Parts: sequence; C-alpha cells; structure tokens
Amino acid sequence: MPRYTVWGVTGVPEIGPGDDLVALIAAAIEASLAEDPEAALQHGDILVVTSKIVSKAEGMQVPVSEREKAISQDTVRVVAERVHPGGVTRIVETRHGLIMAAAGIDTSNVPDGLALRLPEDPDRSALALCSGLRERFGVSLGVIITDTLGRPWRVGQTDVAIGAAGIVVTDDLRGGVDANGRPLNVTITVLADELAGAADLVKGKASGIPVAVVRGLGRLVTGLDAPGARSLVRGVDDDMFRFGSAEAYRLGYEAAQAELRDRTDDQTSERVKQD
Amino acid sequence: MPRYTVWGVTGVPEIGPGDDLVALIAAAIEASLAEDPEAALQHGDILVVTSKIVSKAEGMQVPVSEREKAISQDTVRVVAERVHPGGVTRIVETRHGLIMAAAGIDTSNVPDGLALRLPEDPDRSALALCSGLRERFGVSLGVIITDTLGRPWRVGQTDVAIGAAGIVVTDDLRGGVDANGRPLNVTITVLADELAGAADLVKGKASGIPVAVVRGLGRLVTGLDAPGARSLVRGVDDDMFRFGSAEAYRLGYEAAQAELRDRTDDQTSERVKQD
Repeated sequence: MPRYTVWGVTGVPEIGPGDDLVALIAAAIEASLAEDPEAALQHGDILVVTSKIVSKAEGMQVPVSEREKAISQDTVRVVAERVHPGGVTRIVETRHGLIMAAAGIDTSNVPDGLALRLPEDPDRSALALCSGLRERFGVSLGVIITDTLGRPWRVGQTDVAIGAAGIVVTDDLRGGVDANGRPLNVTITVLADELAGAADLVKGKASGIPVAVVRGLGRLVTGLDAPGARSLVRGVDDDMFRFGSAEAYRLGYEAAQAELRDRTDDQTSERVKQD
Repeated sequence: MPRYTVWGVTGVPEIGPGDDLVALIAAAIEASLAEDPEAALQHGDILVVTSKIVSKAEGMQVPVSEREKAISQDTVRVVAERVHPGGVTRIVETRHGLIMAAAGIDTSNVPDGLALRLPEDPDRSALALCSGLRERFGVSLGVIITDTLGRPWRVGQTDVAIGAAGIVVTDDLRGGVDANGRPLNVTITVLADELAGAADLVKGKASGIPVAVVRGLGRLVTGLDAPGARSLVRGVDDDMFRFGSAEAYRLGYEAAQAELRDRTDDQTSERVKQD
C-alpha cells in the first residue's frame, strides 16, 4: 500500500538576515530527536520550506514604507487590476514568472515595520538548502520552497512550489497509459505543487511552523540537476489568460478605436487631396 | 508535532453503473486489514475519492461517439478556446461551476468505447458516501471527491476537491493573526484542495488506486451540514478572468465597432432628416 507521512518541524527560531538556514533547520530537527527518534532525516525525505524564512535569511526585508516601491521592483507586468472599497487588487507577473497579488510582498509573519519580498531566485535557494542539508545529514533528500497563491476561479489560496531542488517536480504522463493500458488524457501531474499543499496542512499560516518533512515519497527524490520550480511556469505562448478580462477587453476596444481613427485620418487626407 | 499519514486503498474493483460504492470501498478496506490492522477506519479519518469511480457508479458513462454532445450538455459557457495543431483546447465552465477543459469529460481509466461525465452533483455524492461510510464503520469521517484540473499560469494539472462532506473545506483566516499577533495577509486557505493534492500523491493517474485515506487531520472533520466544494467556486463578481484574453479582446473590439456603427447610423439618419 503506497503510504507517506507529513509532519511539521517545530522549534525553528525567528530568522533574520544572514542566518544560516541549513544550521537552524538542522538544529530544530536534532532538538526534536529526544522526543521522536523517527524525526532523524532519512534517504528520500522531502523538506518543504515556507519561502518566508528563506527570504528572511536572504535579507529580503524592506521597510513597510517602501512596500509599493518593492512591488514595482518585483513586477514584470500588471496582469489584472481591480479597484474595490478595500483598496486595489493588482495581480501581477513577478520576475520569477509567478502570477500573484502584490508580487508576493507580504507583512504577515514579518517583524513590525517590515515587509518581505520573495527570495531572489527560489530555485537557487532550494539548491543551496538541499545540498547543505544533504551534506549535513549524509542522506539524499529533496527540498521544496513554497508560497501561497490565489487562483482565478476558485476562492482562497493554496501553497505551491516556487523553488525546488533534488526532486522530480512533475510526473509527465504524456503518451502514458492507465492501469488498463488505455491512453491517459491527463498530461502532467504537478507533484511539487501537490507536495507544497500537503505540507501546508501541517505548517499552516497561523502556527509558526515554517518547515515540514514528507517521508515515504522517496521515489521523487533525484539529482541536484533536476529542473526546478521555474519549469512550472507556463510559457507565454500557452497562456490563454495573459490579461484580466477587463484589461483584454479594453485593449480590444482601444485597438478598434485606433483602427477607426486611422481610417478616418486616411479618408480626411484623401478628401483634403481631392479638395 | 503536527503529523498526518496518507495511504492508498488498493483492491477497489472496476466500478460499473449502479454499484454500491460504500460497500465496495468498505470491502476493499476490510480486505486490507489482515495485512495492515491500522487500516481500519478511525474517528477523524478523511477519505479522498477520485470522481471517476463516483461517476461510474452513478452511470455517467456515455458512448465515445457522443462525447462532443456530452461536453455541450455539461457546458454552461465557453471561457476560452484555442485551435492548435493537435485540435481545439476549449476551457469551459461546467454546470458545477468548475472551469476546465472539455467539461471534465474523459476517456482515460474508462472502458473502451465509453467516455465519462463528472458526477451530477459531487457534493451530494460526497454526502451519500460520507453518511454511508460513517454508518458502516461507526466512526466520524470526512469525504472529498476529486478531479484533476489545469491552471492558467502554471503547467500541468493538480487534483482539487469537486465534492466534499463532513469536512471543513477552508480555513478562513480573515481577521486572524500570525504566530506573533500580527494581521495575516492570506485570507482563506483551501484545505480541501490541499487534501485533494495530498491524496493524489498516493493515488496517481496510472496506478489504478481511486481512494486514499488521510489520518491525523481529524480537526477538519465536522458535521454533515458543512458547506461542500461548491462553496469553493469563485463568484462571478470576483472573477477577474471570466474570459480568455483573446475572447475578452474580441468582445472589446466588437463593442467599439458596434458603437461606431451606431454613431454612423445616427449621423446618416441625421443627414437623411436634414436632406
């Protein structure tokens, strides 16, 4: 019977710029061994780490007063925008290729007066964590770095993988067959996102537990050269929802108006010539 | 340390119209007890069930030749459409409020010559399964029915909850605080979708395992009157991506053209009056 277990790593302290995340996560795990010897990391374990502590260690804090500036810095383009009584919801594409509100810049679980940007390069952060933890514990394990994203057509948010290392992020079933040998319609199962959500069920937002261990899915742990979470970003050519509906509508409206203006201009200059 | 375990229930036979899903799932679980006595269902367990076997038991099979007709039947509106060398990708809103390709009608893991529609009312199906299994085993448990959905900006698919009963589907953190008492930015964690993804990691598409048990998250199990997965569908007023970008662009373009036509007509009739 396929089976796996997920637990939260307690005892990770508040993280600050320059902190050694490998050492602090390792210390928290080692401190828990007295109570639970099973918590010692094993071959095939997957560590799922909230991006917030990665950002904190990497010094991605900005003063809250510079939050808007930081959002602009991390925004590649605005995808959709809506004004409502509580303010403006701005869905943007970040420089990581993520589509999310406010470029992922957040003030919850961050010391007073500060806002926190996403890690500079979450796949690189995952790689550093993964190789550091592999070396420290002498076991082959995978690392996923998560953040919390909304979805366009469903309420609320779920955690997804924004960084990954040493792990197979997708199960590519294209061309595969089902249990009875018939072709599969589903193409690519995104394991890394399912793992991120699975870990969130023990991490949560209000619990202060930033790391979870997943044990029993060692078949997904692989070399450090495997594609990271950046590979989960859909390419522009496949993106059927590149803009919000209101934004795309306006672009179409303006294009038609511009064509009309051009045509009118042409007719006018034609008439001027005739006159 | 918060902890939970997920395992797949093997031995569920191929399901056909009219089959008693409660009895067949119960039999598969009971058959596994000899090998693993821990597999007996307990208070607080959550059963995650692939919608495919629910549809099969409910007789949602259609001949493959009627696949297109079934897609039309189950489509409320077309959200986005794209023609590509392999055919047409049509993202639609189903009568369940789900936004997905081909209205969820699928031929993989379905007997030859048949396609399978989604369950008529997945929340009702979940309720029937949940109350049936609670009665059968005399324990309080939750049920989630899953399907596999794509996402607009990320590659591939993940499993989400399309039906739920006896379970808290969201953790509504609005107005809540973090571990340090500061307001949380994240509003609603969608536990049911995270559970669906967590279960997919042992169910998979190619393994023929349609049911998983999640143990250790009993705090999420609740009364049978809790909101189902239908409550996870975002309302029209909050939907910033109601149409594909190309579709919205075209609507805007056509609206500007129509306005122009009206104006020209007005001017023409004005001139006719003057003449």
